[in-house]
Amino acid sequence: MRIIGIDIGGANTKIASADGKIIELHYIPLWKDTTLPESLENIAAELQPDMVSVVMTGELADCFEDKLQGIQFIMRSVEEAFDCEIKYIDSNGHFYDESKNLRDLAAANWAASTRLIGSEIGDCIFVDVGSTTSDIIPIKDGKHVAGLTDFSRLMRSELFYAGTLRTNLAYLLDKVKVADGNCNISSELFANTADAYLMLGDITEESYTCETADGAGKSKTDAMRRLARVVCADLEEISSDEIYNIALQVKERQIRLLCETISVVAKKNGLNCIVSAGLGEFMIREAAKRLGFECISVAEKWGADISKVFPAYAAARIMEDETSQPGKE
Amino acid sequence: MRIIGIDIGGANTKIASADGKIIELHYIPLWKDTTLPESLENIAAELQPDMVSVVMTGELADCFEDKLQGIQFIMRSVEEAFDCEIKYIDSNGHFYDESKNLRDLAAANWAASTRLIGSEIGDCIFVDVGSTTSDIIPIKDGKHVAGLTDFSRLMRSELFYAGTLRTNLAYLLDKVKVADGNCNISSELFANTADAYLMLGDITEESYTCETADGAGKSKTDAMRRLARVVCADLEEISSDEIYNIALQVKERQIRLLCETISVVAKKNGLNCIVSAGLGEFMIREAAKRLGFECISVAEKWGADISKVFPAYAAARIMEDETSQPGKE
Repeated sequence: MRIIGIDIGGANTKIASADGKIIELHYIPLWKDTTLPESLENIAAELQPDMVSVVMTGELADCFEDKLQGIQFIMRSVEEAFDCEIKYIDSNGHFYDESKNLRDLAAANWAASTRLIGSEIGDCIFVDVGSTTSDIIPIKDGKHVAGLTDFSRLMRSELFYAGTLRTNLAYLLDKVKVADGNCNISSELFANTADAYLMLGDITEESYTCETADGAGKSKTDAMRRLARVVCADLEEISSDEIYNIALQVKERQIRLLCETISVVAKKNGLNCIVSAGLGEFMIREAAKRLGFECISVAEKWGADISKVFPAYAAARIMEDETSQPGKE
Repeated sequence: MRIIGIDIGGANTKIASADGKIIELHYIPLWKDTTLPESLENIAAELQPDMVSVVMTGELADCFEDKLQGIQFIMRSVEEAFDCEIKYIDSNGHFYDESKNLRDLAAANWAASTRLIGSEIGDCIFVDVGSTTSDIIPIKDGKHVAGLTDFSRLMRSELFYAGTLRTNLAYLLDKVKVADGNCNISSELFANTADAYLMLGDITEESYTCETADGAGKSKTDAMRRLARVVCADLEEISSDEIYNIALQVKERQIRLLCETISVVAKKNGLNCIVSAGLGEFMIREAAKRLGFECISVAEKWGADISKVFPAYAAARIMEDETSQPGKE
């Protein structure tokens, strides 16, 4: 019995099997001429699953007038691609049925993750720093106690809209230190966090799985050119050391903001143990250290590949558990 | 004798004749499949000028590896389009000749403006809030005393990289107040300043001369949809009042930052009179009021249309003056 979890985001679609043997990450942006329907058909043909468990966040993409339209587009794409049983997980971590509100499927991938973490590890703050966003979800008595929409989670510090790859540095930075002093920055999308973390060696070219801001390559020199533009400079005008320092300041700022958001959630819920997941686990570990919190790594427990697609893996695992123990939900 | 000034930016190309009778604004983004060469040919065929005076900022566009490559592309496009005499103005406000450094042509449109302001009005802080950026240029003894590159001007508070149309709200805002409290925001390009100022009635749909973030229309409802996404909400989740208040907070924040940058330049240079230009004159007037500074409006002196393309108009005027009084430079 092959059970596949699929996590359909605005930029990336992630696939994992319940046994952890299949792990795939596909860059499928939804916001322009999306290939989601065809890509899912290819995935269906190749993997031939018996059951599919779906979580999504891609309904927020601004090609959709509202979230309902996004949810319906994603569901239609899945249903046209897969011939087998399909289930969707909602923001309470449960399977959707037609008696429920379709909007509860919006932005619920973290709910799958926290249902699995709640049952396998227990109470903690589950922190998943992905390509684009950071989820900071309190788990108490084995269940998440987070807000049920992105809007609500933004207010409660349970969603910090910055990630390891796609975040515009103009969002994170205020001023940056360069050789001659503090410098204001450009508001264009000239460079993103992937450029900073590539420069610092925290990610590899292979994990830089999004478009570059300027459409150029993913070498360190390409990244340096982009980082220089953040202060409206080119490589003639700014030294490599200054550029490296800009990247360091990005990392420092992101970890500081991550610490702040985790602190809010920790205080409110009386929790001080973190479970870390996602491509940005390196930032979470550092944040936990600074906060003096224990940190259990999903990468260490299940492997780094599963950590990067954890909501998809969790979705598959939940379906497997429900299938072997029907009615448990 | 028809003298035309052209200001070639990364997003917009602006045209003005020295007599102020021709004013054109063309949205010609340089960063993707640019139509600049053909567009300039059309402009040349239509206007048939005798002389052309060029200023540029578009060399910073990230389709170019460095500024020199950008300058050369822009010069080539101009020279292939126009058959008449062509001159370029550098960051000192003077015409370029081959004994000089080509890089001095980078980001020099404000130098044309301040040369004209210096001779027609005198010492002041010239503030031009355009679609994308804000120039805050000190003029003393009739000449600008600003940094000569964007990088240098960012450090000296003479360039504030936010404008009336194209600025990502994620750059300007930190948190926003909504009905239930303070809310973190998304880092995506979900909405730009044009959405906020359209919502507030500070600009019209006709002056919204850039692409929308989601590719949808420019009605107030379209803008509201985009503004709602900044807190990851759709129109089902957030009220019109809350959206209007988000727009107000954008304006307040931008004016406050504009005040701060003007203050730095004012203190450093002992100046307290502002000359305002650009589509964002409404913000400059408010900033001047808060700072207790006199404000002379280019729109009032030369007309609102000239204010919006002032560097192009100034470039044409400088060429006219030089032609009628050769050697004056």
